[in-house]
Amino acid sequence: MTIAVVGLGKAGLPLAAVIAEAGFDIVGIDVDNTRCQQINTGKNPIPEEPLLDELIKKYGGKKLIATSLYQDAKYCDFFIVIVPLFLNENHKPDFKLLENAFRNIGKILKKGDCVVLETTVPPLTTELRIRKWLEEESQLSLGDFYLAHSPERIMTGYSISRLREFPKIIGGVNSESGTKAYAVYSKIIPNLTLVSSARVAEFVKVIEGCYRFTNISLSNELFKIAEEFNIDFMEARTHANHKYCDIHLPSVGSGGHCIPVYPWFLINEMEERGKRKDVTLLRSSYDINEDMPEFWAHKIIQESKKTQKPFKSITICVTGITFRKGVKSLMNSKNLDLVKLLMKKGLKVTVSDELYSPEEIEQLGLTFGKPEESDMVFNPFTLDIQIQDIMEKK
Amino acid sequence: MTIAVVGLGKAGLPLAAVIAEAGFDIVGIDVDNTRCQQINTGKNPIPEEPLLDELIKKYGGKKLIATSLYQDAKYCDFFIVIVPLFLNENHKPDFKLLENAFRNIGKILKKGDCVVLETTVPPLTTELRIRKWLEEESQLSLGDFYLAHSPERIMTGYSISRLREFPKIIGGVNSESGTKAYAVYSKIIPNLTLVSSARVAEFVKVIEGCYRFTNISLSNELFKIAEEFNIDFMEARTHANHKYCDIHLPSVGSGGHCIPVYPWFLINEMEERGKRKDVTLLRSSYDINEDMPEFWAHKIIQESKKTQKPFKSITICVTGITFRKGVKSLMNSKNLDLVKLLMKKGLKVTVSDELYSPEEIEQLGLTFGKPEESDMVFNPFTLDIQIQDIMEKK
Repeated sequence: MTIAVVGLGKAGLPLAAVIAEAGFDIVGIDVDNTRCQQINTGKNPIPEEPLLDELIKKYGGKKLIATSLYQDAKYCDFFIVIVPLFLNENHKPDFKLLENAFRNIGKILKKGDCVVLETTVPPLTTELRIRKWLEEESQLSLGDFYLAHSPERIMTGYSISRLREFPKIIGGVNSESGTKAYAVYSKIIPNLTLVSSARVAEFVKVIEGCYRFTNISLSNELFKIAEEFNIDFMEARTHANHKYCDIHLPSVGSGGHCIPVYPWFLINEMEERGKRKDVTLLRSSYDINEDMPEFWAHKIIQESKKTQKPFKSITICVTGITFRKGVKSLMNSKNLDLVKLLMKKGLKVTVSDELYSPEEIEQLGLTFGKPEESDMVFNPFTLDIQIQDIMEKK
Repeated sequence: MTIAVVGLGKAGLPLAAVIAEAGFDIVGIDVDNTRCQQINTGKNPIPEEPLLDELIKKYGGKKLIATSLYQDAKYCDFFIVIVPLFLNENHKPDFKLLENAFRNIGKILKKGDCVVLETTVPPLTTELRIRKWLEEESQLSLGDFYLAHSPERIMTGYSISRLREFPKIIGGVNSESGTKAYAVYSKIIPNLTLVSSARVAEFVKVIEGCYRFTNISLSNELFKIAEEFNIDFMEARTHANHKYCDIHLPSVGSGGHCIPVYPWFLINEMEERGKRKDVTLLRSSYDINEDMPEFWAHKIIQESKKTQKPFKSITICVTGITFRKGVKSLMNSKNLDLVKLLMKKGLKVTVSDELYSPEEIEQLGLTFGKPEESDMVFNPFTLDIQIQDIMEKK
């Protein structure tokens, strides 16, 4: 059996590598031809995934052939799609990339083939949209082919171990699809469970994200309250947490293309059904998250008084702009939002980030600077605000 | 050293018993004289705490003397207060019972004595209110006596093991108070940590409750959304939960005198400071919790159509009215609210509850009934709705 994996990004490539490791031949499809060539010469294009180096070196261009052409996958009988789903400015999912992938698969789909979606999507997407795209392009009907959903559960930096160890689920749009897809997937994923339907699989992944999102916002709300009482939130959090309590880490807000995105999958669907009042907690969590850069800007400006310098002359270095430490991505980064907000408020803001060169920082329209050359330093990953005595250092 | 424990209720008596077990002599004070006599004859008045039977039998009337008179504690040099703090109809804490306890202690307080509050309270209560009551009555100043807070972390049914194993904290209103109180408490509580202040200790306990409250509401919000998609929420929850995800159990709403109460400690304080927008998540959680009986009443009435009987003739038995399974208390019980709501909506509602006799149920103005004699049965602890075919059974 040859398996096609569509999308060789941060989620798709680790999966393709693990499938190769399980003994399957793979055609990997990605729009980025340079990336395909890199993979085919055994080079790992995702530096954040060190465990991937060895696998790509071993399988790239051999068991795993990367290509930009869907036609190269026409002999495959098992298709996995793992392309991104972004939100537009109204928080609605833009299905363009998914539609393109599935319509292209539809064109080469044969009787008996099995298709699995890995991208996290709003509930009902697999059984309604994706089935339709495949049926329209292939002229086949569900039953001629099989369709299932197995939401990715990777975390950039830990993707290989996640695939090898973490619980994963798969569900079919009908019972036969579930069984067929499970039979193949269980050879790749050791910790796999078949759930009752694709929509349950969709929902599982989305609510997992909603749990994290709401709990990050809860932590941030409690952090603000602690400030009001002059309480060290981190001390309180340490002692509040135990077996039955898991107050998350506070932050400048959650970012990336997962956690702050998934709640909208549910908010949209419920609002379209006139059930706005049944998503109030998710909406409140969103409002809190949006407000966090403003909260930190305010706090930093309050602290800046300790420099005893005129406001407009104070320099502050923010030591991170990525949405999460260790992942080179600015997607929905609240840390980047904070930098821009501080600039707008009139502070002289410089940026340093272990993942960005001074040139890359300048290309973003920001000013590179070293922490030791600033009056203040803010580390958005630890939330430490430092006031420095530059004169003393010199 | 003789220790006084004020309040021999569900939280105070297990603590007093564990202190006796640690080798101290105790004067236990409670307004309920009958309860005091019961304890002094070695009888455990809290049937939900089976582990307590042996301890009360062993120490009641011996190392642990229960009394209603504060004067009997005048030779004590260590005082622990663990009386309830209720909310009034505006969700404001009513400090009457606490004030009464501390003013009475103040009257017998001597130089060098140490006082510890165990009741969960809003941040700053210990250092502001309680210190004031003690100073006013004793004519002593902080420094002459010591004052600390160590919030109880019991859970009815598990209180003894909680005291023996669970992490507990203590914090002083000043550093000397913390050290003094810790020295004695650490002889009683094996897993004890001294935190930096009484207010941190207060905050720790309150945010732990807020975590639970918000996560129960989140689960209930997600449950409602799952219903909309015709998804089995319990199946989805099982697979969503793992090491990093702990979606709580859905319910008819959280009740009792702890979980739904503590968020108000923060909401009130923040609203009084004009910071209403910094408690939106806690408020949303409250709104969802309040709405749950209505949600379940609606769902039950929808299901009742399956009986194919005229609405006003349908009988439903609700098999639980306590706020939590296994705890005989109706405090803030959403399950009891649901029963009343179903009655108001015109269903014939009967009640059975393993902790209440038929007579006790009737005394509450409800109708006792057996599940097998009803058209429908709702179990509020499992959320199962059953439609029964009574005719067939007969």
